[in-house]
Amino acid sequence: MEKEKVTLAKFDVDKYLKEGDAIYAQRGAVEKVADEIVEKGFKNIFFLGIGGTYAEFAPVKYFMDKYSDLDVYLVEAAEINVLRPKKLTKDSVVITASASGDTKEIVEAATWIKAEGIEVVSFTKHESPLGKVSTKIIQADVTTGMCEYSYLLFDLLALRILNKMGYFPKYELFADQMKGIFKNLVAIREQFDPKAEEIAKKYYNEPYNIWVGSGATWGETYLFSMCILEEMQWVRTKSVTSPEFFHGTLELVEPGVPVFLVKGEDECRQLDTRVERFCQRFTNKLVVFDTQEYALDGIDDEFRVIVSPMIATSVLTERLAAHYETYTKHNLNYRRYYRQFEY
Amino acid sequence: MEKEKVTLAKFDVDKYLKEGDAIYAQRGAVEKVADEIVEKGFKNIFFLGIGGTYAEFAPVKYFMDKYSDLDVYLVEAAEINVLRPKKLTKDSVVITASASGDTKEIVEAATWIKAEGIEVVSFTKHESPLGKVSTKIIQADVTTGMCEYSYLLFDLLALRILNKMGYFPKYELFADQMKGIFKNLVAIREQFDPKAEEIAKKYYNEPYNIWVGSGATWGETYLFSMCILEEMQWVRTKSVTSPEFFHGTLELVEPGVPVFLVKGEDECRQLDTRVERFCQRFTNKLVVFDTQEYALDGIDDEFRVIVSPMIATSVLTERLAAHYETYTKHNLNYRRYYRQFEY
Repeated sequence: MEKEKVTLAKFDVDKYLKEGDAIYAQRGAVEKVADEIVEKGFKNIFFLGIGGTYAEFAPVKYFMDKYSDLDVYLVEAAEINVLRPKKLTKDSVVITASASGDTKEIVEAATWIKAEGIEVVSFTKHESPLGKVSTKIIQADVTTGMCEYSYLLFDLLALRILNKMGYFPKYELFADQMKGIFKNLVAIREQFDPKAEEIAKKYYNEPYNIWVGSGATWGETYLFSMCILEEMQWVRTKSVTSPEFFHGTLELVEPGVPVFLVKGEDECRQLDTRVERFCQRFTNKLVVFDTQEYALDGIDDEFRVIVSPMIATSVLTERLAAHYETYTKHNLNYRRYYRQFEY
Repeated sequence: MEKEKVTLAKFDVDKYLKEGDAIYAQRGAVEKVADEIVEKGFKNIFFLGIGGTYAEFAPVKYFMDKYSDLDVYLVEAAEINVLRPKKLTKDSVVITASASGDTKEIVEAATWIKAEGIEVVSFTKHESPLGKVSTKIIQADVTTGMCEYSYLLFDLLALRILNKMGYFPKYELFADQMKGIFKNLVAIREQFDPKAEEIAKKYYNEPYNIWVGSGATWGETYLFSMCILEEMQWVRTKSVTSPEFFHGTLELVEPGVPVFLVKGEDECRQLDTRVERFCQRFTNKLVVFDTQEYALDGIDDEFRVIVSPMIATSVLTERLAAHYETYTKHNLNYRRYYRQFEY
């Protein structure tokens, strides 16, 4: 019996897979940059982001810390611009990203960092303000800014660096298997879509939402709460990590208070489970997103942890957001303040 | 003309100053520990906290990063218990704290860390679960858990270490001047108290509150929002740093939405000022706490940055909390969940 074709609202499968191919086609370019970085040598790596890119780099730092003892920092562009950290020197490598290439704080940071003779690797367009102040550029010609596209490129760079430094020995296998990642993420969307519809319908109008996550999926938890619900839907949220939940926010939980928990597949999963058990007892509005629910074809179990943020972003930042928009009638692209004028 | 004596509700000035003396009396003990740490040598320092202690260690890490290029990490106990970071080795020094000495996650962490032969310096009681699994203990005999007591002890330890390693040359002067810190913090309380009353009266019943801060005063911003308003008052908050405010939360600001901004005196102050300018335009409920407003007698200007979290905690975590309690009639010591049963 052939599987029935599922239609995903506001999502063009063919375009998604085609752009996914364009992303994967950058593997060689990414690996070349990684090899050059390792060949030249470095003392530490700074992932430089702000807002969404900060959140997207969070799991990449998590993986580098998990698989190596290299010195890796995750910094916010606006902060680094005023702090000028002592550890950022000519022996550092800065890795940053901006799809538009004109994110103000990132461009400012890259400008002075490059001027100090520090390597600035950017995932951006050659012909953009950021492109102009980068020493190395990786540009994928895609028109949709899916977070999982970013994750794949960032992971390939980070894990290839690790591999060349003697860590993460299965890099080749991982990178090979990633060829099928986007097809998997379409299937996961199809599986999750009815749930997304149901959750959006039930919760779109909640005045306040607690979002909890940890480990490799914390970045995505934060991103959905800050960038989607707050920035794009003007919905009030509190995002906390699973460990910090128990030191403050727990006291706000009671029947009627929605708690959204993103369960990942890494060392911190047990911290998520503790939140789940607690919330099952004290609110009738607990929604759990568990990346472990979803099968991955052609991808080894040991790589699931690396894929977990991609699963989370597919079901949340893309699917759930699309359904929220339908119910709130609040255009995901409309901002009243952000980038609308000088402030 | 003699200054009129101000009475501070729920605050015993004499006891506060007496206990402050007991804290300052630990200076010698703290310096001894610092000197032993430096003498023995170390590769990196881990500040280990959870909830309030995590927040209190945040500025201490900030100062160590500001004044040195030592490897210093701030970690959450529950997280470190599952992550077991590769950089935590026999050459590390762990610095932690628990007034009660029985904070579950901290005791668990200290237990395995000490078992691995790693130095565990604890600000706690000798006769407590944490005391029993620490290699060095600093105990001040005080009965009130003022955050500024912790800050002073932590700062003395951190800055003495820096000094002995060739950084922060004015340690002696700083430590000498700290003798008068608590008297200053009483005067600051007196100055702020009518404002605290007014703010609590106006805002105690708000259903949702945005708290913004950065740099050395970020920890205190986070602490007031999480530990006081959420844990002790069951008031909903969103706490964000000044840079991240502009990547999500800003879209929620509109007339009627309260934004509380804690302005500090460090490199990040300009990021706070940007938030202030923005919020002045878009909400009629902006409340600014500026540590710079308060004079410090007998303390050099260059040390103000180190004192700024102590000012913030005096006006917020102590004074403002006391007035909130009066209006909400919600006992600051009452919890429905936290530490009430197993979860």
